Amino acid sequence: MRLGLDIGGTKTDVVAVGADGAIVERVRLATGFGAEAVVATALDGIARVAGATGRRPLDFRSIGVGIPGQVDIATGSVSHAVNLGFDELDLGRRLADALGRAVKVENDVKAAALGAYHLMTAESGHTARSMAYLNLGTGLAAGLVIDGALWRGARGTAGEIGHIPVDPQGVLCPCGQRGCLETVASGSAIARQWATDDPIPARSLLAAAEAGDRTAQAIRSLLVDNVAAAVRVLVLTVDVEIVMIGGGLSNLGDWLLDEVRRVLASWAVESPFLASLGLESRVLLVPAGFPAAAVGAALVGAPRPGEQAAASAVDDEEQRVSTWQK
Amino acid sequence: MRLGLDIGGTKTDVVAVGADGAIVERVRLATGFGAEAVVATALDGIARVAGATGRRPLDFRSIGVGIPGQVDIATGSVSHAVNLGFDELDLGRRLADALGRAVKVENDVKAAALGAYHLMTAESGHTARSMAYLNLGTGLAAGLVIDGALWRGARGTAGEIGHIPVDPQGVLCPCGQRGCLETVASGSAIARQWATDDPIPARSLLAAAEAGDRTAQAIRSLLVDNVAAAVRVLVLTVDVEIVMIGGGLSNLGDWLLDEVRRVLASWAVESPFLASLGLESRVLLVPAGFPAAAVGAALVGAPRPGEQAAASAVDDEEQRVSTWQK
Repeated sequence: MRLGLDIGGTKTDVVAVGADGAIVERVRLATGFGAEAVVATALDGIARVAGATGRRPLDFRSIGVGIPGQVDIATGSVSHAVNLGFDELDLGRRLADALGRAVKVENDVKAAALGAYHLMTAESGHTARSMAYLNLGTGLAAGLVIDGALWRGARGTAGEIGHIPVDPQGVLCPCGQRGCLETVASGSAIARQWATDDPIPARSLLAAAEAGDRTAQAIRSLLVDNVAAAVRVLVLTVDVEIVMIGGGLSNLGDWLLDEVRRVLASWAVESPFLASLGLESRVLLVPAGFPAAAVGAALVGAPRPGEQAAASAVDDEEQRVSTWQK
Repeated sequence: MRLGLDIGGTKTDVVAVGADGAIVERVRLATGFGAEAVVATALDGIARVAGATGRRPLDFRSIGVGIPGQVDIATGSVSHAVNLGFDELDLGRRLADALGRAVKVENDVKAAALGAYHLMTAESGHTARSMAYLNLGTGLAAGLVIDGALWRGARGTAGEIGHIPVDPQGVLCPCGQRGCLETVASGSAIARQWATDDPIPARSLLAAAEAGDRTAQAIRSLLVDNVAAAVRVLVLTVDVEIVMIGGGLSNLGDWLLDEVRRVLASWAVESPFLASLGLESRVLLVPAGFPAAAVGAALVGAPRPGEQAAASAVDDEEQRVSTWQK
């Protein structure tokens, strides 16, 4: 059994994942603000899930953490986690010291890519060897699975497509460029363009668009068109078989998926080249409520499907891992 | 020793590559037009290079072909090779039947990616495990090396970044979309925008721009800015360590490289995010005259550096291959 955490700006999601990849236990806690509170929340979550499974933290085959910010996966240190209230945290070492065992740390979008890929292949029986997880949260970023394994890139920044400019006339992005994908297709893009008291601005935006508000309709079009553009960038550049959409905006559910597919299909009518790629059939949505980043964090370091299991565990555990690998 | 061919619209380049990866023999022939003539040119080139090395075609460890168009690498068949005068050719089987041995066929840009990666790692001692080869020819496309191996994508279309739109106000692309990278940063983009009798329109364009022609300067800026944009797309999406520029326009040499680096550096001044990626230090140029696609074709199917050599050859040949692998 493996344990995974997704430390988000408001919630920390902790899961225990069985050898077959299924979620055995799950706990959600409010994330404390600041470095010490984040560590305390993580340790609390680990203790609770371990307790619920009748195990000690030492008994898990692996413990992994997905967290926003820049992660040094070799050392487990995290930088620039603005939403969590710290600039630098040696998270891996802090957790390892407290638990007396190794803890892997990974960027949350990359962890979610692994979790979404696992869901797609192990549970849905999809045989794709490549996938992009397109995270539509406050920002826009992707995680890549290539040849069945997470591809972090040469410097850990693979998938930062939110900062590809798509319109020279677009607004200034906080990154310093103009017209980035993230300025039109993300939670922050909606919040910037649509003033509302609704804690979920996207919901308010869609309601207004539905009611005929032209401004809302324009913002909505820009959102959908550019989520489709993100899918196009991912398939044209990496040729991943599947793009799975997740993150906060994926709670818009089938409406979002249908709209993105509609836009992709409309492009295919204009472009035989795009039509040949079958983009609209390659987009999926992470099911609502599936804790992709926590499951992925649990699987960070697990042998990938088709690989030999690490020969370090007791026999029955090995047996179950082998089953999962099929 | 391995043999590789690059079948281009005007020339067919044939090389014999030693176990250390160095070019031993090289022959260039005019490519015949149409399916039969292409096959005849290939067989002629193979016979000449084999003869020059004192070997029969059967004696080479591998023979590979790089060719424009859509390639089914499993069967060796080629489609949509418009510039070569055919729509469909079972090239792999035709050559295999004539030679009595297997011949591998690969898309020319992907073969060139492998050749450029080989040059960078084996000859320059670069240790990068990822690279994009950015081909600026009639069109614009990239070949990707990920984790030391060619990544073709789920459906063989990885690297088709020439058809990522970068300007909603841009011109219609033959692909059916508007404002594609290829419409502003390729040989065909220059030919469309700059009327000249010079057989090398880029040369005429640069001379006019240098002489103060405002239109030429605008076209030149668009070219350089969008080659830089292609580099940005490749690094932001895949996070390849290096982008190597090749293809016809790379004959513009250091001027092009300097200009692209200048643009990337100017973006970094505006964007701390881009600055953190160090883009301008990650761009290189394939050396003028290096037959990247032919060398890559020779290496298609060769064990990648660090992998076990195939255990099928005579001992001394194995020995030399092992040396090359270091």
